[in-house]
Amino acid sequence: MIRPLSSAMAQTDAPPVMEARRWLDGVTFPADRPLINVSQAAPVDMPPLALRQAIADAAINDPAAHLYGPVLGLPALRTEIAHQWTAAYGGQIEAHHVAITQGCNQAFTAVMSTLAVAGDEVILPTPWYFNHKMWLDMQAVRCIPLACGPGLIPDATDAAKLITPRTRAIVLVSPNNPGGAEYPAQTLTAFMDLARAHGIALIVDETYRDFDSRTGAPHHLFTDPKWANTLIHLYSFSKAYRLTGHRVGAIVAHENRLAEVEKFLDTVAICPNQLGQIAALWGMRNLGDWVQGERAEILLRRNAMSHGFKNLPDWTLLGCGAYFAYVEHPYALPSDEFAKALVTRASLLTLPGTMFQPHGSPDGKRQIRIAFANIDTAGITEFFHRLKHLTL
Amino acid sequence: MIRPLSSAMAQTDAPPVMEARRWLDGVTFPADRPLINVSQAAPVDMPPLALRQAIADAAINDPAAHLYGPVLGLPALRTEIAHQWTAAYGGQIEAHHVAITQGCNQAFTAVMSTLAVAGDEVILPTPWYFNHKMWLDMQAVRCIPLACGPGLIPDATDAAKLITPRTRAIVLVSPNNPGGAEYPAQTLTAFMDLARAHGIALIVDETYRDFDSRTGAPHHLFTDPKWANTLIHLYSFSKAYRLTGHRVGAIVAHENRLAEVEKFLDTVAICPNQLGQIAALWGMRNLGDWVQGERAEILLRRNAMSHGFKNLPDWTLLGCGAYFAYVEHPYALPSDEFAKALVTRASLLTLPGTMFQPHGSPDGKRQIRIAFANIDTAGITEFFHRLKHLTL
Repeated sequence: MIRPLSSAMAQTDAPPVMEARRWLDGVTFPADRPLINVSQAAPVDMPPLALRQAIADAAINDPAAHLYGPVLGLPALRTEIAHQWTAAYGGQIEAHHVAITQGCNQAFTAVMSTLAVAGDEVILPTPWYFNHKMWLDMQAVRCIPLACGPGLIPDATDAAKLITPRTRAIVLVSPNNPGGAEYPAQTLTAFMDLARAHGIALIVDETYRDFDSRTGAPHHLFTDPKWANTLIHLYSFSKAYRLTGHRVGAIVAHENRLAEVEKFLDTVAICPNQLGQIAALWGMRNLGDWVQGERAEILLRRNAMSHGFKNLPDWTLLGCGAYFAYVEHPYALPSDEFAKALVTRASLLTLPGTMFQPHGSPDGKRQIRIAFANIDTAGITEFFHRLKHLTL
Repeated sequence: MIRPLSSAMAQTDAPPVMEARRWLDGVTFPADRPLINVSQAAPVDMPPLALRQAIADAAINDPAAHLYGPVLGLPALRTEIAHQWTAAYGGQIEAHHVAITQGCNQAFTAVMSTLAVAGDEVILPTPWYFNHKMWLDMQAVRCIPLACGPGLIPDATDAAKLITPRTRAIVLVSPNNPGGAEYPAQTLTAFMDLARAHGIALIVDETYRDFDSRTGAPHHLFTDPKWANTLIHLYSFSKAYRLTGHRVGAIVAHENRLAEVEKFLDTVAICPNQLGQIAALWGMRNLGDWVQGERAEILLRRNAMSHGFKNLPDWTLLGCGAYFAYVEHPYALPSDEFAKALVTRASLLTLPGTMFQPHGSPDGKRQIRIAFANIDTAGITEFFHRLKHLTL
């Protein structure tokens, strides 16, 4: 133990993905059964060559690519998001509603810093995204878990019962990480009404919006002329454009909230890195059709996952969508031990449900998350072959 | 006012550099008196072509350049820092003592999050670096100002009187921003002894180490075999390699502290961006001589600044070094109004001392900071010409 040590940090969990990576240390995988890593939601291939060339060209020729820029991001990228969001969701979204961040995790921490202090409460449906929980823990903000109903869909009526005078926000992730659920539009409307009625914020993280199986707007929140008084929308460029290593995300919110966000981003980031922003802007302007192809491929993999679990009747597929399948396994082992056994017995790296549920939750002990977008349909076939012949 | 709003964020100042930029809005500068911007410490030229080509090559050909990497940074970059730091400072610095961050601001926020919670105290010499103050404010950690003696050098004996049971750290920046002071080795030793005696951390931010006018190690802190129990060292790649737009910094600290830092970085960053790290590593391996040339040029500019103020006897040069001159002006106007007047009357953008001192401090009202590294010696001549003929 190092001293001094923040009491809040001491009580915050270690990063799950890094912990899972350590399970691989010293493990040798058989040549005929190489590792299948479905632990982290990360495209494994490079972005298209033309995008890489756009980055390279800026690196060589654009002086601004190497300089500090505005704290809230490149004006052209903010404007492009405003245009494309307005087209996608309806309503009126302006460039001054948009801030660019060093990834969507940073977007969450920035907006949460404008909302809550130690002792305040934030409602998160379970299973939750672990980095949301970790940020709230290290800020000593209380995480209030909201158990989901069938299909891992949260219910606003249930959430209403959890609201207290200390509640500052409700956080929804749709399509969901880790659950894969695509929240119905009426669910989001009900949460927006609830948040507005209580004067709290509704944060909607749509990192996986580009892989939603539905066509058209997934919700109508932005068509409300007063959306910005309640709604805070988060986005990531990592998945659609294969830019995980560049760290670019976005916040869409009231300009007065972005003035507060600017304090956080100035202090933590100074500005988002320029090449990542240049890449994101080039992608938005040029890769619309290509992203549609990516989406079609992910939906094929999703179908392969659903189909695969139908042939494993002892397993229960709780949710499947975006990049993720979230399942109950049929073994007696708690999921954290089960996930480690999958590494040595089946060369599969998954994350256990314990990483997505409150400590001690019986649900977490039965569940695992599979980030299936990382593997193609052949890989998914092999994945199910190994599960089917698993012996513990 | 937006609601809900964190009470701590509401009491945090807006970003000074962005505020100063807004003073330029709507101002037209005469053709014969263009703007001289000495508000932000930022190299204005691009990095060398070979470094830009290294970035471009990685963008085109290196799949890892586009993927998530380890939370604590590229192993090769951590190792390179360990080697070069050991050579520069003596002592034993290993790769496991090093973490890479998205810039040095993020390094500060990460380590501070492992040290202090709301209500704790941190000692900062004044004038202080405003982003340090802003982070502590938004975390509701109390900033305890430590007035500096002659030459803007803080005194450990004075600091000792400020330590309470809630003190968690002392933060030193050397060479200093905004004051330019290069702290003597014995000053740093005295602070290290003080911090160790009280079981608190000593944070030493050496963002400007590459531009120190002294040769040899600027201090002996790392030669103490137990340095890691007390010392936390921060660094930035922005200045030496002209990488401000890439956001790369570093922490050197005890590996157990870095395990706590990892929680913060995972949640706020996931990982540093890869191209910035690739650029930093290439720079460390190939630009040693070039950085020496950069240093020589900055030292020339520093001499020009010292010389220039000698010819303005009504002004007092309080400190001059690294990228900064910190001065007392002779006018009756408070510095925040004076700095605005410099924009319209002399086309000079500086930052007022009020941005670097506690609210209401009489010192801040007399002082301004000049980031002279942004202008060449011809620009410095013009700068003094304008100050000399200034009429308010």
